[in-house]
Amino acid sequence: MKARVYVSFKRTVLDPQGQTVRGALRSLGHSSIAEVRQGKFFDIDIAPGAEREQAQREMDQIAREVLTNPVIEDYRVEFLD
Amino acid sequence: MKARVYVSFKRTVLDPQGQTVRGALRSLGHSSIAEVRQGKFFDIDIAPGAEREQAQREMDQIAREVLTNPVIEDYRVEFLD
Repeated sequence: MKARVYVSFKRTVLDPQGQTVRGALRSLGHSSIAEVRQGKFFDIDIAPGAEREQAQREMDQIAREVLTNPVIEDYRVEFLD
Repeated sequence: MKARVYVSFKRTVLDPQGQTVRGALRSLGHSSIAEVRQGKFFDIDIAPGAEREQAQREMDQIAREVLTNPVIEDYRVEFLD
């Protein structure tokens, strides 16, 4: 089973990396770029034999407690198969 | 228009960040985690009025030439609307 956890800054949090990328793209002539926000994702392979429901609970726990800083970040869990 | 560019290490490239996360998860008791690979994504807002086909070409160029290191990384472009 494969899960993907997306972690991104909350909408209200400034994203300096994204702003830097936007600035770089504009200076390269890409003037139609209005905003860039950067995030990260984790592709997680779960050993065969795990039950789907149990795996969903575990991924949610991992995303919430380990992969995300809840003060400034949001997460989303998606199963790829 | 909104595009998302996913950038991840090529399959053949070692991902030390992902391995560190896997190690941390295992030490926390998540023994069913077989592998973790980390990637990043860029949410790009394109100013209104752009044509879809032109925007697709531009996003592909941006992903290839600016956001990705082609020696070690792959990318994928997705439009969210």
